[in-house]
Amino acid sequence: MRPIFWEKQELRLVDQTKLPTEYEEVICKTVEKTAVAIEDMIVRGAPAIGITAAYGVVLGAYENADLSNREQFDQAIELGIKRLEKTRPTAVNLFWALDRMKALMVKHGALSTAEMIRRFEQEATRIHEEDIEMCRTMGRFGAELIPQGATILTHCNAGALATGDYGTALGVIRAAFEKDPTIDVFADETRPYLQGARLTAYELHADGIPVTLITDNMAGHFMKIGRIQAVVVGADRIASNGDVANKIGTYGVAVLAKENGIPFYVAAPTSTIDFRMESGEEIPIEQRNKREVTHIRGIQIAPDGVRIENPAFDVTPNRYIAGIITEKGVARPPYSESIPVLEG
Amino acid sequence: MRPIFWEKQELRLVDQTKLPTEYEEVICKTVEKTAVAIEDMIVRGAPAIGITAAYGVVLGAYENADLSNREQFDQAIELGIKRLEKTRPTAVNLFWALDRMKALMVKHGALSTAEMIRRFEQEATRIHEEDIEMCRTMGRFGAELIPQGATILTHCNAGALATGDYGTALGVIRAAFEKDPTIDVFADETRPYLQGARLTAYELHADGIPVTLITDNMAGHFMKIGRIQAVVVGADRIASNGDVANKIGTYGVAVLAKENGIPFYVAAPTSTIDFRMESGEEIPIEQRNKREVTHIRGIQIAPDGVRIENPAFDVTPNRYIAGIITEKGVARPPYSESIPVLEG
Repeated sequence: MRPIFWEKQELRLVDQTKLPTEYEEVICKTVEKTAVAIEDMIVRGAPAIGITAAYGVVLGAYENADLSNREQFDQAIELGIKRLEKTRPTAVNLFWALDRMKALMVKHGALSTAEMIRRFEQEATRIHEEDIEMCRTMGRFGAELIPQGATILTHCNAGALATGDYGTALGVIRAAFEKDPTIDVFADETRPYLQGARLTAYELHADGIPVTLITDNMAGHFMKIGRIQAVVVGADRIASNGDVANKIGTYGVAVLAKENGIPFYVAAPTSTIDFRMESGEEIPIEQRNKREVTHIRGIQIAPDGVRIENPAFDVTPNRYIAGIITEKGVARPPYSESIPVLEG
Repeated sequence: MRPIFWEKQELRLVDQTKLPTEYEEVICKTVEKTAVAIEDMIVRGAPAIGITAAYGVVLGAYENADLSNREQFDQAIELGIKRLEKTRPTAVNLFWALDRMKALMVKHGALSTAEMIRRFEQEATRIHEEDIEMCRTMGRFGAELIPQGATILTHCNAGALATGDYGTALGVIRAAFEKDPTIDVFADETRPYLQGARLTAYELHADGIPVTLITDNMAGHFMKIGRIQAVVVGADRIASNGDVANKIGTYGVAVLAKENGIPFYVAAPTSTIDFRMESGEEIPIEQRNKREVTHIRGIQIAPDGVRIENPAFDVTPNRYIAGIITEKGVARPPYSESIPVLEG
């Protein structure tokens, strides 16, 4: 279920706009094609965006392999990084991964262009491999929080397809299922882009984990009637006070969970934490194309001419969050104390 | 924007499954066709279902006009009523309207078949006309609750298309807009059937009332950022303690409204109140076809083989409801005191 492959100077991305009815791969050989793939959500999910952007920098390096002058080469790389930074504003992993790539140029100022390409490629591959390892570690920490036989609700797709592999929220669910095969999952379909229906249901079903698909507005009902025992979601950016930006609708799920006495957990690697951001109110929220709301796979479902809003994310205040599961352990409230400990 | 027309022994229904991209009418000349139209949601909305069912009884009467023996005629009518009662379980207006039609047979036991047909037709037309009048009265009561310049959130379609005309929740919005053209509306798209996108946005836009369409999971975000000042929804059945069954997702909207200090109102005629039902927990919740969730207008959006839940309604406990707007006035908490006053 890996969404990202790197082989022989080529980045291959599973086209997540086509799943689950078609499986196609998109091949990227340039920074620009990689940037467009992120913008068009061929690849999505905060960790996966970070990994993809890192490989995008490697592609930029190969594109400029003929620039033997390091200053010119570095300028070309910087241009590519700027292009990648503009693709999506909310997920902080994008900036975190690009910062790691940038830091290589400073650290290895004296190396040749050819040697730098090798370093970039090593670093991107390391970011990818580390991400998979972090997901497995998060899974182990998170699985301990899941009650025996629980039904776990998740929103959007924080799965293998959103990461290097295995997933953040779905990593926790996978690890919990390995320990206790009596758990099951409810997946919100996650309008407008339907990541829950198209990706989460697909991933879990493929892994043999029992999954029930619902529309977003059913989550409260199933919580109220006692069908849900825990909520686990991913994150696109976490402020240092524990406020969490995640896919639109996460805030509503969190409020409903609290109202019904159900623990609401966020699973994300520490690369998703923006340690210098004081509160979630500062997180930029991406506004996406109106057509995602008015059309589904080309079919018009709304009248012409009405106003549309399409914020891709919302911010869940820290008070709704029972724990933030990272690869370094589970942060608990008060987050302004537990989150700084995770830095560095 | 009327959804139901009665003329020359024919019931014409606007096909609400085709809106907003196509306008078609379905002609019903039999009880059976009327029942199927209700089941298939050609017509939907609690008051509109009641009106349609009443006309269905009239069609049944015409179908059996050759039965001059009243006993045989009444038995045939009863059969038709039983068929109509089985169409949809949640909206109580269906049973209320059919009970009114049934009562005619008892009241006028001595009349001829031909005379009974005339009475049935009068009664159905009266139910239809009364509904429109009730909507306008509710609109006047409800408009007084809307703050100057408010943005009102609504869920599903409780509009002209859900009633005889004018609407319950949208009747309140229409009346508020007549007084104060600075108000505007946010409409939840209302998955899986998209009544908000297809019907509410269409109705309000046609009337020149500013409407912004959002996906269901965006409602909480817009409440949290202060964009919404009031919520008004319709109802399919109200228990005598003020618990409200309405379109799936209503409960979530109510919880989010309370969490954000926004008044949540229900607008419904007293025919929607089930005075003999003590609490919302007793209300039967219709489970609809899985395909409404997995397909949108024939396009598959979910993987094969996953489990699906599709409850059409949920129950909002009375504690989330600031007021229930009826044609007899606005009931306020405690509802176990204010609702019985509305009976009779």
